Amino acid sequence: MLHEDRLFSSDPAQRSIAREIYDGVKDLPLISPHGHTDPAWYALNEPFPDPAQLFVVPDHYVFRMLYSQGIPLEKLGVPSQDGAPVETDGRAIWRLFAQNYHLFRGTPTRMWLDHAFSDLFGIQKRLSPDNADETYDRIAECLGQERYRPRALFERFNIEVIATTESALDPLEHHRTIRESDWGGRVVTTYRPDSVVDPEFEGFTENLRALSELSGEDACDWDGYLEAHRKRRAFFKSMGATSTDHGHPTARTADLSDPEKRRLFAKVASGSADADDAELFRAQMLTEMAVMSLDDGLVMQIHAGSWRNHNGPLFERFGRDKGADIPSPTTFVDALQPLLSKVGNEPKLTVVAFTLDETTYSRELAPLAGHYPCLYLGPAWWFFDAPEGMKRYRELVTETAGFYNTVGFNDDTRAFPSIPARHDVARRVDSAFLAELVADHRLDEDEAHEIARDLAYGLAKRAYNL
Amino acid sequence: MLHEDRLFSSDPAQRSIAREIYDGVKDLPLISPHGHTDPAWYALNEPFPDPAQLFVVPDHYVFRMLYSQGIPLEKLGVPSQDGAPVETDGRAIWRLFAQNYHLFRGTPTRMWLDHAFSDLFGIQKRLSPDNADETYDRIAECLGQERYRPRALFERFNIEVIATTESALDPLEHHRTIRESDWGGRVVTTYRPDSVVDPEFEGFTENLRALSELSGEDACDWDGYLEAHRKRRAFFKSMGATSTDHGHPTARTADLSDPEKRRLFAKVASGSADADDAELFRAQMLTEMAVMSLDDGLVMQIHAGSWRNHNGPLFERFGRDKGADIPSPTTFVDALQPLLSKVGNEPKLTVVAFTLDETTYSRELAPLAGHYPCLYLGPAWWFFDAPEGMKRYRELVTETAGFYNTVGFNDDTRAFPSIPARHDVARRVDSAFLAELVADHRLDEDEAHEIARDLAYGLAKRAYNL
Amino acid sequence: MLHEDRLFSSDPAQRSIAREIYDGVKDLPLISPHGHTDPAWYALNEPFPDPAQLFVVPDHYVFRMLYSQGIPLEKLGVPSQDGAPVETDGRAIWRLFAQNYHLFRGTPTRMWLDHAFSDLFGIQKRLSPDNADETYDRIAECLGQERYRPRALFERFNIEVIATTESALDPLEHHRTIRESDWGGRVVTTYRPDSVVDPEFEGFTENLRALSELSGEDACDWDGYLEAHRKRRAFFKSMGATSTDHGHPTARTADLSDPEKRRLFAKVASGSADADDAELFRAQMLTEMAVMSLDDGLVMQIHAGSWRNHNGPLFERFGRDKGADIPSPTTFVDALQPLLSKVGNEPKLTVVAFTLDETTYSRELAPLAGHYPCLYLGPAWWFFDAPEGMKRYRELVTETAGFYNTVGFNDDTRAFPSIPARHDVARRVDSAFLAELVADHRLDEDEAHEIARDLAYGLAKRAYNL
Repeated sequence: MLHEDRLFSSDPAQRSIAREIYDGVKDLPLISPHGHTDPAWYALNEPFPDPAQLFVVPDHYVFRMLYSQGIPLEKLGVPSQDGAPVETDGRAIWRLFAQNYHLFRGTPTRMWLDHAFSDLFGIQKRLSPDNADETYDRIAECLGQERYRPRALFERFNIEVIATTESALDPLEHHRTIRESDWGGRVVTTYRPDSVVDPEFEGFTENLRALSELSGEDACDWDGYLEAHRKRRAFFKSMGATSTDHGHPTARTADLSDPEKRRLFAKVASGSADADDAELFRAQMLTEMAVMSLDDGLVMQIHAGSWRNHNGPLFERFGRDKGADIPSPTTFVDALQPLLSKVGNEPKLTVVAFTLDETTYSRELAPLAGHYPCLYLGPAWWFFDAPEGMKRYRELVTETAGFYNTVGFNDDTRAFPSIPARHDVARRVDSAFLAELVADHRLDEDEAHEIARDLAYGLAKRAYNL
Repeated sequence: MLHEDRLFSSDPAQRSIAREIYDGVKDLPLISPHGHTDPAWYALNEPFPDPAQLFVVPDHYVFRMLYSQGIPLEKLGVPSQDGAPVETDGRAIWRLFAQNYHLFRGTPTRMWLDHAFSDLFGIQKRLSPDNADETYDRIAECLGQERYRPRALFERFNIEVIATTESALDPLEHHRTIRESDWGGRVVTTYRPDSVVDPEFEGFTENLRALSELSGEDACDWDGYLEAHRKRRAFFKSMGATSTDHGHPTARTADLSDPEKRRLFAKVASGSADADDAELFRAQMLTEMAVMSLDDGLVMQIHAGSWRNHNGPLFERFGRDKGADIPSPTTFVDALQPLLSKVGNEPKLTVVAFTLDETTYSRELAPLAGHYPCLYLGPAWWFFDAPEGMKRYRELVTETAGFYNTVGFNDDTRAFPSIPARHDVARRVDSAFLAELVADHRLDEDEAHEIARDLAYGLAKRAYNL
Repeated sequence: MLHEDRLFSSDPAQRSIAREIYDGVKDLPLISPHGHTDPAWYALNEPFPDPAQLFVVPDHYVFRMLYSQGIPLEKLGVPSQDGAPVETDGRAIWRLFAQNYHLFRGTPTRMWLDHAFSDLFGIQKRLSPDNADETYDRIAECLGQERYRPRALFERFNIEVIATTESALDPLEHHRTIRESDWGGRVVTTYRPDSVVDPEFEGFTENLRALSELSGEDACDWDGYLEAHRKRRAFFKSMGATSTDHGHPTARTADLSDPEKRRLFAKVASGSADADDAELFRAQMLTEMAVMSLDDGLVMQIHAGSWRNHNGPLFERFGRDKGADIPSPTTFVDALQPLLSKVGNEPKLTVVAFTLDETTYSRELAPLAGHYPCLYLGPAWWFFDAPEGMKRYRELVTETAGFYNTVGFNDDTRAFPSIPARHDVARRVDSAFLAELVADHRLDEDEAHEIARDLAYGLAKRAYNL
């Protein structure tokens, strides 16, 4: 099912160069500096449930596509919030999935699934209504085996280190369990403070109280609030964190005066902030976080530009992360200016910017990253973590920012079995891109090999201090 | 003049796959669900006038390019509104056109013209000043023959069904004539209510009065106005319509309360709306139309983002549709939210969105269409109905929305002889795109064949209920 | 080091066509209608200083990339404004540059440098820490020779004509020297009035006084101000200028009434303009300049969309042009409308638009240029003057605007030794683009040859009246 030359150009000259480049990187360990796998998997090492619960129910890439063609989420087993009954029979869900597998043609989801089916479960036939049951049985049988448990898969996947992402309010119990276990796998956390930084986050003011309790600081006072962040960051560092992550609707930053900050925070903490105040507070907090990063060395990731929960009625019935987060036009040149003016010239600070607005690659992000010492570009993100998306990223970014202002690959996944596939796609697409540069004599072959290793392994390790 | 492998990659592996895919679709009947051909052609079946009147004078793709290089519209026979004399000698226009044929190099216009010259009129030499007269004579001679009349060409073109587009105020006499004739060609209309929905349309308030007369409802009252739409839609349906079409400067939608709607309509109907009112009214009416579509089953097309009549002085002298409609930045995520919140989760509703802002393909439209059950993407439109434009469309859309959230090809033409050429270009470009996916093992060959048939025929038929 | 087939597709069919096309244009003289070389070079014909002063210190493409990876500008010899000491040892700068040469992989800078090293200085090994000294010595030795002086290189480069760019306040002494010399090289100036048109330019009001003195008109009075421009333009024309150039943050134009203009100018001239006034004044002045161009025949260039000096702290320490000019979202459809409404239908006017926002190529600029007689598209500019950038430009522009609404190549450089490399890259990329059109039968081979000559030579000569 998986052709050994997949994703390489069919031009023989390019394909042969791509093969050689890929050979040099395909077996490198996986560095996964940013993602959303569940630390409980590694802590508890319990078997994964049935095939539908592994591949369909939790993966919004999968069920959004089925939903877009009129299949109700209930039939896919996605838990409702209003208690409406949903399908619980894994086999029924799987059959529906198999009947609609053609919808994924041409998408990265299809590539990841085929890779996992084939490589992980030894399935050699394309999923179809005809073989749905057979495939289901095969996967179910595997999942019962010891060697399909999370830790065994972690090792089989050749993961050198993986970062999960936890809320600033998370007690990190699973991470503690992992660290205290005798298992050698390296799993680190990431400090994600959105719930206590974004005044529009559900339960923001209660979250501040929880932050106070966790940190022993009065997080409803500006100085205490900042100190609480510092303490939580230190705690996350003690659980392996080397970075923070900020999922904001825009990349806006601000650099207010001290009295302005205090006045704004008072409004925000009291729950009386309007939309403009909220946006300004998020903006100011990005700058505060950058300043803290300069101090404690945590790499700062900014993921900007997603309109979360666009589908109101669906959100009310099924909650967050149901495939209805839609990218919006995003700008960085104006938005990042306050932060960059304050700390952008510090070479020891690392800020990694991610965008869902591809127009900013060549217009804004590559020129910014090709100038500011602190700024790096994250890889093609989310919808663009796909062959064409990655190719455009390299084509749009490289001529202005080069390779060394980028940070290698992030798999950014909550779908554990897709991890090897995602890294493999990235390594293949980068090999193919480099092969084209070699084939038309824009780059020497020895350089291409070196770059490929950096893109597949070295840059992520260096950028994230892993 | 037409190479059999045109538009296929020169890579031998890809080309050979492309040929096979194309072979499976090249002779499929044409489904033309959206266009601007004149129903009088099919109703009256009169011969087309001279070559210049067929190819140059009515085609703004052609004369805008000549105008951009300093050739006055008067010399091209384009009728003026101020009564200024214009060239009427077809041969003189044709010679000027032939002298400047090099201006079309690299454009789709050139491809369509060559296709029509060669395939339809048997001309084998590239148009040039040297053969202008010869070509003119050849075409003119053909146009006098019975088999070059509209109905004969319709059959020769293998058109299974074609939709024209008529104003909500059109009595549809030509459509009635066609339906009552003994001719078997299937020609349907499309409900286009811009002139009675857009308060900035010329003669809007008179148009409301005309709508009242046609419908027997008081269209100057909100309830009567809506009822008038419902009646006109029903009448259009009786003349074959399966869809409505909305050409708006933006994609903005709204979902106002009942009192707000009434207040806004009162202002609009009295002619006292300002620009903001007009925009809000158009926005509200898109949502009203979607609600009606849910009721009567008409597919809803939204064509957004063209700044009409950008060239003021030219508009005053020559009127609309003179090549001066220019795309503007357009957004959909915010704009469509009110409509999608109201009816977006209805699988039995079909809304087809078209854009002239390619940045929205991957950023907004593919993520939206890959989630909302009602939403589909129209094909690459207008300036982008061309090989590179189509290729970008597939590359930008497919990884997120797949193939099945798109609706196949629309020729969108008012140039009758270009119809086969346009479908042929689309079929070739899609075959080439699929061939690349097969050649680098992203797709199996049997899947590519199935998709190609869907893109060329099945999807349009299904999406538009044709 | 330079492969003879570089930048041609590795597909054998395309490569062989590209070679033939390129053969027909590679030796054509260079037309350089827009650039920033120093006229003093041609006037005084002094030897260039050491290799670091030639290749590193003055080239913001080079030092911005090194700076982005944490190398201080001081160590690269970039002069500070605050008197802080900077490296003056050319060899030390060169070694640092060589140690970091890998940062330029995949960038056009690398291609230009390799071209100059190889073609101009006969160096055959890629620059590296190992050969830094050897390379330095080789270049330094050459620079001492007569045949490496500016005039000799000008001739060796086969430059037919080069335009420099001077401020409206420049006395053009070097141009006078060149014209009065017995040297046959054709060097012309370009009228760049930003410093007396942009109220936010440093020293704007003093600049108006200087303009008064130079012109003998009272440039602090509206009528005198316009007359002063007319006189300076005439003077620049006498020094060979065939064009003006306008570097504005946006492309906004305006067409105010006479009283409005006077009122605005009074505010601006008195130094009391706010940001909105400044923007409106720049907008109005673009229209005034277009009107003057209609009168005196100077071609008008609009370079819009760069956020100058984005890095505040660096600007304070090192001044302008330090790699911190970052593109911003730019629009043209609304922005150019006032100017185009006034003079856009004049075929004898030539306005050339340049953008740093690639989204405008297909959405706005190609449709505008494919309609308005006065409007032409400048080539891929600045960050986009690179193989992928140029390829996207052709792909995005050609189908709507054709080739003949573009103006050929501009090297836009202040790095003299890069001039042949830049033209060569453009000729190769265009040859490769045309070869693809021929290989997939969108264009005939004889047409491709003709177009290639136009793109490499003819169009620039015609568009700029050179």
